Amino acid sequence: MIIQMGIEATERDVLNVIEKAESKGLKTSKIIGQNIIVIALIGDTSKVSDEDFAEMKYVDRVTRIQEPYKKANRKSHPENTIIDINGIKIGGEDFVIMAGPCSVETPEQITEVARAIKKSGAQILRGGAFKPRTSPYSFQGLEAQGLDLLNIAKKETGLPIVSELMAIDQIPLFLDKVDIIQVGARNMQNFALLKELGKIDKPILLKRGMSATIEEFIMSAEYIMAGGNNKVILCERGIRTFETYTRNTLDLSVVPAIKELTHLPIIIDPSHATGKWWMVESLSKAAVAVGADGLMVEVHNCPEKALSDGPQSLKPEKFDKLVKELRKFTNIVGKKL
Amino acid sequence: MIIQMGIEATERDVLNVIEKAESKGLKTSKIIGQNIIVIALIGDTSKVSDEDFAEMKYVDRVTRIQEPYKKANRKSHPENTIIDINGIKIGGEDFVIMAGPCSVETPEQITEVARAIKKSGAQILRGGAFKPRTSPYSFQGLEAQGLDLLNIAKKETGLPIVSELMAIDQIPLFLDKVDIIQVGARNMQNFALLKELGKIDKPILLKRGMSATIEEFIMSAEYIMAGGNNKVILCERGIRTFETYTRNTLDLSVVPAIKELTHLPIIIDPSHATGKWWMVESLSKAAVAVGADGLMVEVHNCPEKALSDGPQSLKPEKFDKLVKELRKFTNIVGKKL
Amino acid sequence: MIIQMGIEATERDVLNVIEKAESKGLKTSKIIGQNIIVIALIGDTSKVSDEDFAEMKYVDRVTRIQEPYKKANRKSHPENTIIDINGIKIGGEDFVIMAGPCSVETPEQITEVARAIKKSGAQILRGGAFKPRTSPYSFQGLEAQGLDLLNIAKKETGLPIVSELMAIDQIPLFLDKVDIIQVGARNMQNFALLKELGKIDKPILLKRGMSATIEEFIMSAEYIMAGGNNKVILCERGIRTFETYTRNTLDLSVVPAIKELTHLPIIIDPSHATGKWWMVESLSKAAVAVGADGLMVEVHNCPEKALSDGPQSLKPEKFDKLVKELRKFTNIVGKKL
Amino acid sequence: MIIQMGIEATERDVLNVIEKAESKGLKTSKIIGQNIIVIALIGDTSKVSDEDFAEMKYVDRVTRIQEPYKKANRKSHPENTIIDINGIKIGGEDFVIMAGPCSVETPEQITEVARAIKKSGAQILRGGAFKPRTSPYSFQGLEAQGLDLLNIAKKETGLPIVSELMAIDQIPLFLDKVDIIQVGARNMQNFALLKELGKIDKPILLKRGMSATIEEFIMSAEYIMAGGNNKVILCERGIRTFETYTRNTLDLSVVPAIKELTHLPIIIDPSHATGKWWMVESLSKAAVAVGADGLMVEVHNCPEKALSDGPQSLKPEKFDKLVKELRKFTNIVGKKL
Repeated sequence: MIIQMGIEATERDVLNVIEKAESKGLKTSKIIGQNIIVIALIGDTSKVSDEDFAEMKYVDRVTRIQEPYKKANRKSHPENTIIDINGIKIGGEDFVIMAGPCSVETPEQITEVARAIKKSGAQILRGGAFKPRTSPYSFQGLEAQGLDLLNIAKKETGLPIVSELMAIDQIPLFLDKVDIIQVGARNMQNFALLKELGKIDKPILLKRGMSATIEEFIMSAEYIMAGGNNKVILCERGIRTFETYTRNTLDLSVVPAIKELTHLPIIIDPSHATGKWWMVESLSKAAVAVGADGLMVEVHNCPEKALSDGPQSLKPEKFDKLVKELRKFTNIVGKKL
Repeated sequence: MIIQMGIEATERDVLNVIEKAESKGLKTSKIIGQNIIVIALIGDTSKVSDEDFAEMKYVDRVTRIQEPYKKANRKSHPENTIIDINGIKIGGEDFVIMAGPCSVETPEQITEVARAIKKSGAQILRGGAFKPRTSPYSFQGLEAQGLDLLNIAKKETGLPIVSELMAIDQIPLFLDKVDIIQVGARNMQNFALLKELGKIDKPILLKRGMSATIEEFIMSAEYIMAGGNNKVILCERGIRTFETYTRNTLDLSVVPAIKELTHLPIIIDPSHATGKWWMVESLSKAAVAVGADGLMVEVHNCPEKALSDGPQSLKPEKFDKLVKELRKFTNIVGKKL
Repeated sequence: MIIQMGIEATERDVLNVIEKAESKGLKTSKIIGQNIIVIALIGDTSKVSDEDFAEMKYVDRVTRIQEPYKKANRKSHPENTIIDINGIKIGGEDFVIMAGPCSVETPEQITEVARAIKKSGAQILRGGAFKPRTSPYSFQGLEAQGLDLLNIAKKETGLPIVSELMAIDQIPLFLDKVDIIQVGARNMQNFALLKELGKIDKPILLKRGMSATIEEFIMSAEYIMAGGNNKVILCERGIRTFETYTRNTLDLSVVPAIKELTHLPIIIDPSHATGKWWMVESLSKAAVAVGADGLMVEVHNCPEKALSDGPQSLKPEKFDKLVKELRKFTNIVGKKL
Repeated sequence: MIIQMGIEATERDVLNVIEKAESKGLKTSKIIGQNIIVIALIGDTSKVSDEDFAEMKYVDRVTRIQEPYKKANRKSHPENTIIDINGIKIGGEDFVIMAGPCSVETPEQITEVARAIKKSGAQILRGGAFKPRTSPYSFQGLEAQGLDLLNIAKKETGLPIVSELMAIDQIPLFLDKVDIIQVGARNMQNFALLKELGKIDKPILLKRGMSATIEEFIMSAEYIMAGGNNKVILCERGIRTFETYTRNTLDLSVVPAIKELTHLPIIIDPSHATGKWWMVESLSKAAVAVGADGLMVEVHNCPEKALSDGPQSLKPEKFDKLVKELRKFTNIVGKKL
């Protein structure tokens, strides 16, 4: 960690920084320049918060050399984390496709979609029961009943379930009824929720916030892992930019970044990223090529009647064609699909 | 509401849209163009979700004429909402300053700051007890004990308290111990939380999310109001842009926009917006001039020893000078300070 | 085109809009709603500027149905534009790699790199002679002499040349010395320059501006094409967002968008987009998979001594490995490399 | 300047950095940490480009302590630069309002507007002759003839003229016909143009690019000043963000930043920033309060018939009221209007 102080800093101010560093078991080295004093902290700074130094007197800038995350850091855990869901290896040899409708609607709908996506090759069923909607007047999902419908489809097809949780008090319900708990983009920095999810033993699919930096994204995973739950799957779903043609801007460079910085699996959600079903195929291929561990794709058996998010959902036939196309690419990168 | 459909739409598809609109009590009018069919929905569309039409077959675009919010809308409530806290009129004749440290630390600190800001003219004491921190390893606040310390300072000075709540299960505690409940930027779209806050009778200070549009910001207020709690104070605290010199980019144009679109009070937080204490004065003056109803300002009695957020906190003497300067501007705009 | 007017509009205001539309050979249809008047313009609106209507009295919003570009529009030219450079078909059957150093430095450097990239399979040599640098005190390129060095390398290897032009008065020089003229991101809306480039007969590589929307990007191509030069190759090089880990955010969704909306070729520059050489390989694979027509990649024979942009340049051996890897992907998508 | 190198760096690599620094007359100091080598460069680094070090082998990061600009830097020129146009002191005691139509249209229009704004108190006449338009099919301005019309209005009223130049070959024309040359946002990094403007003796109004950081904005001023022309007036006109309610997002925090970092005058353009005439008044007041040196405001004698940019133009009566209101604020801040 490198601490820059202004030239106005007194010897006492500098000593304060040094003493604080030493109290944390770090060594220090000091350089006095023309307009600046630089103090380098040497040792394991991963347990030290840069905010703790940034707020000290005459500290102008704190630059981390070591990353601020420890458990998610690839340096502390060089091999990939592989999360096993009923034999499916997320982050391992499988290219994992989580597919299904944005919202669970009826037993027929969800069972039909589940059968179709299973036949095509998807390994996990997604479906929204609790829906984060911008308007309080929009359809908010079937809630607990939606999870029951997902379980009917699971019984029928054997597909594990991923679904979004929106509040701490839903955790017992989700522990019981889903195989992967999804944290939506809007809750990526709901730290109270992340802390509680750190205490349970269930894989978490953590979506990147709309304007979260890569470091903040990893720090949110670190919140969960700090509590003891290491089963975190990251999901890029597009960030908010000035571009309005697509709903969000899919940032695929996050995949090599996450693979370099962490040992966690990362999947891509091209449906929410673009908001356009006809962009899903080409961006899904790109996701395989760039090194992602899987996809989350919206599939609907009747897009024109969907209760939510029709324009970005694929019909089952289109999804079937998509998986066939993707196999050409997963073959090259050496992933099983 | 204007619905554009592609020329591929069959007569049946068009009829589906018309029937849905009529089932909601709306009249419709249709234009058939060269490459487009346009259906205008006429009547009160405020209870209709555009998402409901957007997902229908061959619907290309849905354009709202009426705003998607009803209770927050100035059209439905032309006079300003004034929230009275112990005689202080937020949104009314007062220019309200909420001041205090980022984090509550000790009884001495918070009482000393409270005395100082009261003397200078601030009307409300702010202080963080539960802190949203990017890192799980950073100081997370004194939590419940922090609220107790705020109440010691309140007893001493009479200043009402605003503090940030982070989870639903903290609501009873906050109902008991604070005068205004703050919802932080990261929770602006924590819809489960907003719904619960709609059920209580306590003013809510809602901060704008880091990448929330003005419409989304208002919709989050609408979530609270839809539940029956109309006491919502909006707070602009900077949005996330590419600029890195300031922590965020303060968007002051939100003030005339909110005043035009809603009847709710709006205040400005220049401390978090800029992250630089020396920018607070000039942007606070701008906030008065642009028509804001108040400010939230960080004040610390010893910035260099603060447990969090030092570089953006004013010392009490600087704050005192700030209020004196602001009075020149509040005089012109006709607000009491 | 759909024109929404406020209910305050008089009959005269509405008539003004209708007369203007009719004067341009369009038919109109009018709907009067509760709070709105909607006028739909029917006919070929591609020559009509929406700005012309937007500025009329009580016009609230103008929504285009037809795109504002005509010559670049795929609807007016359904087949792909293929630009032939010495037998290389950009936008056609070839996957085209433009490689070389950020800056041309010495005859040895550029010739050595040219030989290396040719051997690996690149078809076009890139190299900066006139350099856009943020600081006036940074190295500005060898300028005209740089173009001469590129031509030495061209003579040696037969590789055509692409290089960036920065001002109108350089056009004669570039007409003489390069095969493709590059317009940099910072000049994407230098309309005076675009107009002049519309008058010449030389392919233009147009880079997307740092904060240009897809529509603005296409409109800049339209500026060139409106002048008569249809040989425009688009290049995505990352957009500016809040993310700072990568230099820019590569927006690969622009590829399916451009392919849907226009008939122009589009290539990807992963070197400038990420600023990190170790991200180039995975994003290059993604570029093939997503359907791009080619790449622009920085290659340097001695990255540690480069006069500019070292950290994002590949060494020739890494580039060689990259092309071998990419061939697996170009085979699948049916492109020649 | 602080240079961080990876631990893989050999002694030779470190020496290379040190030798390069010493060759530029700087002293160096080295710290070797656990995973890092830090070299601090001590001395006057303002003539050294960080890009020059960033590209060296195993250099991970270069952090500037000194700013990269010298002539614009307040440290090298503590007192404010005051630009005198016919006795109007921009950056000095005057609060300067540049007003007029977006486009010059007819002799009557421009003369009438000029008379009106002069009467209200504006000191400078603005009007677009060469117009940067997104579409090649939109009205491009009256060009040279527009400058002549401006001069008719100048003769009539005595108001100096500011107008936008778009290309190098227009410089002689503008030298002859305008008092301040405006460089538009889209040309802020047209470095070829900036270099030419550095060679002339005429004030330049430099608008901030749509996605330019504050440092890039100052560096573009530095380009002009490096050539010898120190008469640069900066203009904030809104930056591009995700918000779509306003055309751009006005960043008023740029004013205290520019005042801290440079000695140059800065003015605000609320008309282009918001795109909404009804927001101009409140943001203009905020501009005075925040410390800006002036405004650029669109005024049109008949907004509903303007050839361009109607919805953001004020009518003369509204402008007159605006100036009256602003005087209350300029009185407080001690500026003459």
